[in-house]
Amino acid sequence: MRVDRIFTNARLATMAGDAPYGAIENGAVAVRDGRIVWVGSANEAPSSDEITDLEGRWVTPALVDCHTHIVFAGDRSREFERRLSGESYESIAKSGGGIVSTVKAVRESSAADLAAATLPRLDPLNQEGLGTIEIKTGYGLNFESELNMLKAIRSLGLVTGLRVQSTLLAAHAVPPEYSGRADAYIDEICIPLIREAAREGLADAVDVYCEKIAFSPEQTRRVFAAAREAGLAIKLHADQFSDLGGAALAADFGALSADHLEYTSDDSVAAMAKAGTVAVLLPGAFYVLGETQKPPMAALRKAGVPLALATDANPGSSPVLSLLTVANMGCTLFGMTVEEALAGITLEGARALGLQNEIGTIEPGKRCDLAVWDVDNLAQLIQWIGARPLHGRILSGDWA
Amino acid sequence: MRVDRIFTNARLATMAGDAPYGAIENGAVAVRDGRIVWVGSANEAPSSDEITDLEGRWVTPALVDCHTHIVFAGDRSREFERRLSGESYESIAKSGGGIVSTVKAVRESSAADLAAATLPRLDPLNQEGLGTIEIKTGYGLNFESELNMLKAIRSLGLVTGLRVQSTLLAAHAVPPEYSGRADAYIDEICIPLIREAAREGLADAVDVYCEKIAFSPEQTRRVFAAAREAGLAIKLHADQFSDLGGAALAADFGALSADHLEYTSDDSVAAMAKAGTVAVLLPGAFYVLGETQKPPMAALRKAGVPLALATDANPGSSPVLSLLTVANMGCTLFGMTVEEALAGITLEGARALGLQNEIGTIEPGKRCDLAVWDVDNLAQLIQWIGARPLHGRILSGDWA
Repeated sequence: MRVDRIFTNARLATMAGDAPYGAIENGAVAVRDGRIVWVGSANEAPSSDEITDLEGRWVTPALVDCHTHIVFAGDRSREFERRLSGESYESIAKSGGGIVSTVKAVRESSAADLAAATLPRLDPLNQEGLGTIEIKTGYGLNFESELNMLKAIRSLGLVTGLRVQSTLLAAHAVPPEYSGRADAYIDEICIPLIREAAREGLADAVDVYCEKIAFSPEQTRRVFAAAREAGLAIKLHADQFSDLGGAALAADFGALSADHLEYTSDDSVAAMAKAGTVAVLLPGAFYVLGETQKPPMAALRKAGVPLALATDANPGSSPVLSLLTVANMGCTLFGMTVEEALAGITLEGARALGLQNEIGTIEPGKRCDLAVWDVDNLAQLIQWIGARPLHGRILSGDWA
Repeated sequence: MRVDRIFTNARLATMAGDAPYGAIENGAVAVRDGRIVWVGSANEAPSSDEITDLEGRWVTPALVDCHTHIVFAGDRSREFERRLSGESYESIAKSGGGIVSTVKAVRESSAADLAAATLPRLDPLNQEGLGTIEIKTGYGLNFESELNMLKAIRSLGLVTGLRVQSTLLAAHAVPPEYSGRADAYIDEICIPLIREAAREGLADAVDVYCEKIAFSPEQTRRVFAAAREAGLAIKLHADQFSDLGGAALAADFGALSADHLEYTSDDSVAAMAKAGTVAVLLPGAFYVLGETQKPPMAALRKAGVPLALATDANPGSSPVLSLLTVANMGCTLFGMTVEEALAGITLEGARALGLQNEIGTIEPGKRCDLAVWDVDNLAQLIQWIGARPLHGRILSGDWA
């Protein structure tokens, strides 16, 4: 077998196979052309001129953050400060705060501005072993600025070496100029944007915020029909604050994922299971907003719905740039097991992006995207908050 | 005025004076012999041959972590994993888990082992601008191992450049060999240790875990009487799970701080205010343990009790190595303002260690211990979780 490189003397958490974590003690990974071509016991590894000794360290798939709003402009930390000093949401909104302030700042930004503003926010995620990130639009809310966001997202994929998935979320909120006219906003902006984004190859998926304060299930269906027609994958912000049947609606459309899900009903869970729709849990927003209603963990597990975790990185409800902290929150706040949490930020994150054949496990045929850790066992990765355990990251077979 | 160095072009959060955060825009700090000798507007700064331009960055006092158990041996992450997989606390304790496993590992460690095991755990705190840390004993629980912990703590102060305060917490738990004989443990181990630690200059303070599952108020008083006699400062783990009047007891002894305080009564709050005892809040443990009873924030504020925040870094109930995340938890979980949270990890942390004249603010006479940040405003420091905003750290006037 011709191989370019072997990574050896590793404790592999392949996240595949029947053993817990798919673990292989004293394992090795062989790479050719950036892909894994062989995984197994180091004693049986193929030969190679280039052998990298990982000195017994734990190795997982590089992490996957499958739900973020990390491209934005402006700053809402002063709102955080004002709210904690006793000012009401209403008062802050009246003075131009909330998502409106982010939309204003994004509309004043070029695609280049948006990409530049986002780069430093990717650093902490990179320093925690990130390999793939999904990024949504949804702060432009007009034709030009949503396209600018899509271009910024695509450019980040080109310049950072990360795999970046682009999701069009024009139906994130109704912009001020369409206030009270959500249907017109969908017809005049969202649907034309879907067609344009598909034509230019700028989006991989389409997402909608289906909630009483945003878009109705019927409006969501219209957006999804356009997405399907354009050949784009589908995702949904569903059931975060109330049960509108969003998760079932997503499943109806064969969505890759339904995200948030605090109020999802058992019927919707069953629909997700049947459709293979991934549940993307976002405990950062749950924590920041001080929510108490948790996603229906028992029902999701019983139905066999895949559970992913993501940062939901955004300037308001989830200002979080650490997937390991999110994994800890998945355990501490939602009662996930450590293995579920680690799967949630690797293989199930990949599945939520439709990339389960490309990334997310350490298996032959996948991209050789690995995270190498200075920990004694995998539970340490997730138990400790703020511990910075990454030794190094490998993307397509090279240290990165 | 002779000065060794000027740090200029800084936005100073001096945490002193009447302005919010004691802020001075376009400020400068002059240093001589490692201490601040002048603080003010950059235009009025004294002259110096060595001028460091901080390029408009925000500068705060270096951070203070005033309550940690960061010196330990062994690993309890597997217990975290087992608990989340459904195993009961009882079953884990029966198999040798819990604090008992840490005590066993510490007793098998030399002072050198303990210091070496702790060094990597300090890295994430250092990378967040730490200047001063308090570290407690309490996992040796016999004469020799508690002394080993004290020596490890002192050695960390010598080798790391951090200011390290050492607290003797022999009365952390009753060790197995004294099971049912807590009073004998105090007489035969804790009190002799206090005298020995004072004689050898190994401890700055004495702490007790006053709780139904640990030591009674009467036992706590006996330990504190010995501490007072030995000339050591006093701190107390008080009212975490029940109101035993611990905070008032601490105040009675003029304690520097009473820590945790979830169940502290209004009367105890009044006693703390009168005695000048600092409330050290530990939201990491509150989060990890899934507690719902919050400290009496309104009463503490009304009485004017100083509020500090700390990581409580330990292998069981607060595996947390980020003071900024703790500050976020102080805001998000306990409703502190951003300014209170920042004060909690600077000047009030210093006060909880009796070091308010040495560190904790940017004022003439204090050590020049500074943290320099890549943020647009101070609220960003605390709003974002996992963001790694430190530009650099200055200890005694030098980059460190």
